Amino acid sequence: MPFLIDGLQYINWSERIFTQMREGGVDAVHVTIAYHETFRETVYRLQEWNQRFQDFPHLIRRATSAADIRAAQAENRTAILFGLQTATPIEDDIGLIEILHQMGVRIMQLTYNNQSLLATGCYEAEDPGLTRFGRQAVAEMNRTGLVVDLSHTAERSTLDAIATSTRPVTISHANPDWWHPARRNKSDVVLRALTGAGGMLGLSLYPHHLQGGSACTLKSFCDMAAEVASRYGAAHIGIGSDLCQDQPDSVVDWMRMGRWSKTRDYGEGSAAAPGFPPMPLWFRDNRDFGNIRAGLAAAGFSAAEVDGIMGDNWLRFYESAFVPA
Amino acid sequence: MPFLIDGLQYINWSERIFTQMREGGVDAVHVTIAYHETFRETVYRLQEWNQRFQDFPHLIRRATSAADIRAAQAENRTAILFGLQTATPIEDDIGLIEILHQMGVRIMQLTYNNQSLLATGCYEAEDPGLTRFGRQAVAEMNRTGLVVDLSHTAERSTLDAIATSTRPVTISHANPDWWHPARRNKSDVVLRALTGAGGMLGLSLYPHHLQGGSACTLKSFCDMAAEVASRYGAAHIGIGSDLCQDQPDSVVDWMRMGRWSKTRDYGEGSAAAPGFPPMPLWFRDNRDFGNIRAGLAAAGFSAAEVDGIMGDNWLRFYESAFVPA
Repeated sequence: MPFLIDGLQYINWSERIFTQMREGGVDAVHVTIAYHETFRETVYRLQEWNQRFQDFPHLIRRATSAADIRAAQAENRTAILFGLQTATPIEDDIGLIEILHQMGVRIMQLTYNNQSLLATGCYEAEDPGLTRFGRQAVAEMNRTGLVVDLSHTAERSTLDAIATSTRPVTISHANPDWWHPARRNKSDVVLRALTGAGGMLGLSLYPHHLQGGSACTLKSFCDMAAEVASRYGAAHIGIGSDLCQDQPDSVVDWMRMGRWSKTRDYGEGSAAAPGFPPMPLWFRDNRDFGNIRAGLAAAGFSAAEVDGIMGDNWLRFYESAFVPA
Repeated sequence: MPFLIDGLQYINWSERIFTQMREGGVDAVHVTIAYHETFRETVYRLQEWNQRFQDFPHLIRRATSAADIRAAQAENRTAILFGLQTATPIEDDIGLIEILHQMGVRIMQLTYNNQSLLATGCYEAEDPGLTRFGRQAVAEMNRTGLVVDLSHTAERSTLDAIATSTRPVTISHANPDWWHPARRNKSDVVLRALTGAGGMLGLSLYPHHLQGGSACTLKSFCDMAAEVASRYGAAHIGIGSDLCQDQPDSVVDWMRMGRWSKTRDYGEGSAAAPGFPPMPLWFRDNRDFGNIRAGLAAAGFSAAEVDGIMGDNWLRFYESAFVPA
């Protein structure tokens, strides 16, 4: 049976959401547990997940491997994979990379919008590429099996990380900038390098990444996916919905400003539209993946390609990426 | 009475050292309490200093202002000023700048050798200048009275910080690269910008910063000081000895590698000479400032200029720099 996997969500988790996941047949979700959290705060997030696994064992299970995802499907549960959208949890300490992997974290962005100790984020004015610590950190992530995610990394740092990494990396949630120019969307050069090195692109459904925003049509999205497949290969595509369901607007402020800013930063929003934009009507929550599946088929993908994009490609990627080198 | 102030030391502190400070008539020392420490670890360092103040009240006193330094001189004690050689203690959190100032910290480097969240260190291959967080952090340091120290910052970030700061900044321990080319010594452009903006240069006695290294002569050092005065003004010069007395070689490893590196980094040293180099014979410890005082007079400085370089310039700088804007 094909797998349904979402390559990135950040939801205000609840039984209602987990039930929606089951209704939508979602086998696995890569969930973000940190945007700006310190190491200790990240451990709190893991503690909260442990409580959820204890509270809702019929709906979800902790997952750190492709085997766990397979088991989840067999058990009619949704597998929860942990990822960080920031390198803040490793602080200045390379030893925390292996510790985080041992605690079950499987994916880490090198930076979230700003300059990190490892690399440059896509909101900085300039991008000098990986830092001294960044080169060592990528090597350590490769060694331990912590996947490098470059979704919020600036162009040069992204290319530098792809070239430095000895294992395939991911851009878990973004779209091509040739479809919709946006600071967070990626250039053809980056997408060629990513996929050429065996990496995975998770197509984003966050309205700021969509042509036409919240009004983007399913056809436009799926036609874009077809062009991505034609340029880079359908085997390198998944979904990374960036679904932020049930979150208050204060959470978008946390994402954008963390604790680093004393002044308001609107990120991909604006003063006129500071909060979360509404999702497209054809993808409101975890029950709507069927619309995308149908849209991809209508856009000309084969059944096997659709299965790949909807989850099998992520599963294959995770299978090799999550284990030590 | 003129003041004797050392603009930077990192010593393995003990009663023996504090006694040497009194023997040398040292009125105040800016002591480093963090190279790579987290916020909590920095608080431990402050706790250790509180214990020392309790144990040796006849030798040292805590100081957070120029008035404390004046009081220390009147009481025949040495004033201890706290500084950080790294921005690690503020983590990703701009609010920790004011907290650290409230805890008595008065000086902070924007970065130590590597890329930080604020700026680029002098060992990185490239230097894009202050980051988004860096610009906000400099403004917050200006507001609170936490002095910006650029000793280990790369050239462009240094110039950027000098231009961004609305208050004079310091390079607490370095020499001109036109006297001794070294990665840590500073260009004429930087020194002109620093002093032109009212900033202070602390001349370093760390052998890797000296012409001829450990064999550097007192005359060479004082002639350099005279040329610095001629180019930038004697009022902008102090001493920042960088004295690392009684430290084991493991401490130089901590300085160079912190926790960010899994491979050996020799910093200003080399595989052949990995440890602390021996100090010049004319400046072995806190009892030897008289040699420098005499050397400066011999190099042609007036008595008032010598007093300024030996401490009065630092006192004047601290007087205005340590208070909120």
